[in-house]
Amino acid sequence: MEIEVLQEKLARALSTVSRVAMGAKSTLPILSNVLIKVDKEKVSLTATNLDMAVVDFVPVTNTKDGAITVPARLLAEFVQNLPKGENIRLTSNGNKVKISTSKYSSIINGADAADFPELPNIDEKKAVIFKMGVDEFKTGAAEVVIAASGDTTRPALTGVYFNTDKGSLYIAATDGYRLAEKKFIEKVQSEVAAIVPTASVQEVLRSIPEDIDEIEILFDDTQVRFRMGELEITSKLIEGTFPDYRQLIPNNSDILVTVNREELTRIVKIAALFARESNRAINCVADSKKGKFIVSSISNEIGENQSEIDTKVSEDGSVKLDSRFLMDALNALDEDKVIFGFSKDVSPVLIKNEKDDKYRHIIMPLNN
Amino acid sequence: MEIEVLQEKLARALSTVSRVAMGAKSTLPILSNVLIKVDKEKVSLTATNLDMAVVDFVPVTNTKDGAITVPARLLAEFVQNLPKGENIRLTSNGNKVKISTSKYSSIINGADAADFPELPNIDEKKAVIFKMGVDEFKTGAAEVVIAASGDTTRPALTGVYFNTDKGSLYIAATDGYRLAEKKFIEKVQSEVAAIVPTASVQEVLRSIPEDIDEIEILFDDTQVRFRMGELEITSKLIEGTFPDYRQLIPNNSDILVTVNREELTRIVKIAALFARESNRAINCVADSKKGKFIVSSISNEIGENQSEIDTKVSEDGSVKLDSRFLMDALNALDEDKVIFGFSKDVSPVLIKNEKDDKYRHIIMPLNN
Repeated sequence: MEIEVLQEKLARALSTVSRVAMGAKSTLPILSNVLIKVDKEKVSLTATNLDMAVVDFVPVTNTKDGAITVPARLLAEFVQNLPKGENIRLTSNGNKVKISTSKYSSIINGADAADFPELPNIDEKKAVIFKMGVDEFKTGAAEVVIAASGDTTRPALTGVYFNTDKGSLYIAATDGYRLAEKKFIEKVQSEVAAIVPTASVQEVLRSIPEDIDEIEILFDDTQVRFRMGELEITSKLIEGTFPDYRQLIPNNSDILVTVNREELTRIVKIAALFARESNRAINCVADSKKGKFIVSSISNEIGENQSEIDTKVSEDGSVKLDSRFLMDALNALDEDKVIFGFSKDVSPVLIKNEKDDKYRHIIMPLNN
Repeated sequence: MEIEVLQEKLARALSTVSRVAMGAKSTLPILSNVLIKVDKEKVSLTATNLDMAVVDFVPVTNTKDGAITVPARLLAEFVQNLPKGENIRLTSNGNKVKISTSKYSSIINGADAADFPELPNIDEKKAVIFKMGVDEFKTGAAEVVIAASGDTTRPALTGVYFNTDKGSLYIAATDGYRLAEKKFIEKVQSEVAAIVPTASVQEVLRSIPEDIDEIEILFDDTQVRFRMGELEITSKLIEGTFPDYRQLIPNNSDILVTVNREELTRIVKIAALFARESNRAINCVADSKKGKFIVSSISNEIGENQSEIDTKVSEDGSVKLDSRFLMDALNALDEDKVIFGFSKDVSPVLIKNEKDDKYRHIIMPLNN
């Protein structure tokens, strides 16, 4: 195997690919290596943790076909520290790779490419394919993953649910205490219902190259592939059934409060300080006569607090919420004003932007 | 106790003072509190970890004399989250403090000021006093603390040694493997020889207010006080004798290499990658015929590497060093070119800026 490649191109590809290799917590040592495979004038860099594989294709010159695997972290750090603009030459010799420029020379001990695990493959002709803008993908995925569960005893809840409904593509996540849903693509032709591991979605979010505008998402029955220019992340899907979540989202809220997002964020953050020793519980009260939305918390040990915002309130009401969940929801919203909708019984609280309807976040109230 | 104070002034003072309270790892719970003491139109905020005390004086209005202690972290976070420009009112009632603005109101449970430990005091009339520019203090102290030891079995080495020699004030630190010295003030009238705990110097570095130009350093026999405008940090000194370090600094090096600092930093960083499993040992070779300075490292397990810099070399030589110590030294230097001086025997290696002589860093070689 032999290639010549510009420092910045190799460094960029390695920084993405090596993250997956470094994150592979496995007893299989070769998973911490990156597979370098030369096929004509193209080299592919690949890493996998068995659940997910990332492949980046890098244009190179003066090649000799072949393949080898090399410790990903060491190679990435070495290449990152070489000067920009240098042409780096990689040459394999048995299970060693020589990496050199005019003034820098290293030999890294690698391992046989034949020992690298087989990678998941998708038959793209049979796959369901969606295409969308990178910015919409980034925003929507980030807004939804926050609600996913970390509890592996309920695997379906540890993923992001890609699903079509009435000709639109949605993504949703829930941990049983809160739920986030985003309308991802307004009009689609195909149908899908697939749970993508949260870790894979997060890896995609971290890896999106800066110079691309569109992301392609391909599903077959058991896998998903995110194609971002020359970079591909392929992941297993989570088996199981996602809860029928649409019935949980309240269609109408008894009490609607429209409130400045920054002010609400501030007073929730303050109330959270005093709720640390009381299960993060804070009280939200809507006072229609005074036209105030009041947030308070109390702890026998540390003290108590109360803050208020002047605003329009449709009716009196109160609800007790987990302050962290409310903060997460508020951080995912972006309009100046947000709507806080709750009911007279213990129905979930709905939090959304005042105008845009594509993102909905619901939180189960705490018992009083 | 009663005060009225602008949010930003109180928030700034609390962020400095609360750090000491939060760092106080003690079984005495009151140390995690801040002492708020009102005396006429001035309030002092104080925290201590018994080794060190920090006091900040804040201008306030509408005061009633008195004192109370309050959990520092909670108060600091609460005040930080209030809007800028607001006037905050603090009123004590028994062991509780009410903190309020027009829209925010909290009651925090505190503790009796009488239970707060007595603070170290310096008789300033008898103290030895030095004054210096804040920028010189910051730079010099940061360059020296890196060489201090963390090994508490040799207490004298866990501090920064303030000492006068031939009419100048120096600071120095060593962990037995490397040593850093800075000429702090060129001409001084008084004499001092005192070991200040590294933790106290670091706290001073973190706490220096942005709007001051001068720092005052006052020593008595057992304590030091750093005065920075309205902020004072008072610390115990470390008892014991600092090594007679001047004799360790080589007066002449056999081999002198003048080298570009950035290039050297780069190749040391690269060599360090391959030295992780060999006690961080890297080889530095001066080749006078080729006019090269060559850094290399080798590991049976991961591989080997070699990089070189074209430069002037006075004579052939080689030395083996701890890559982390060399990186620390290089990071503390700031000129484009640095001098790397070493000897034919196992004398310490001297590293310094090419022109400025005030900072000297020496590293003991590793055995070959």
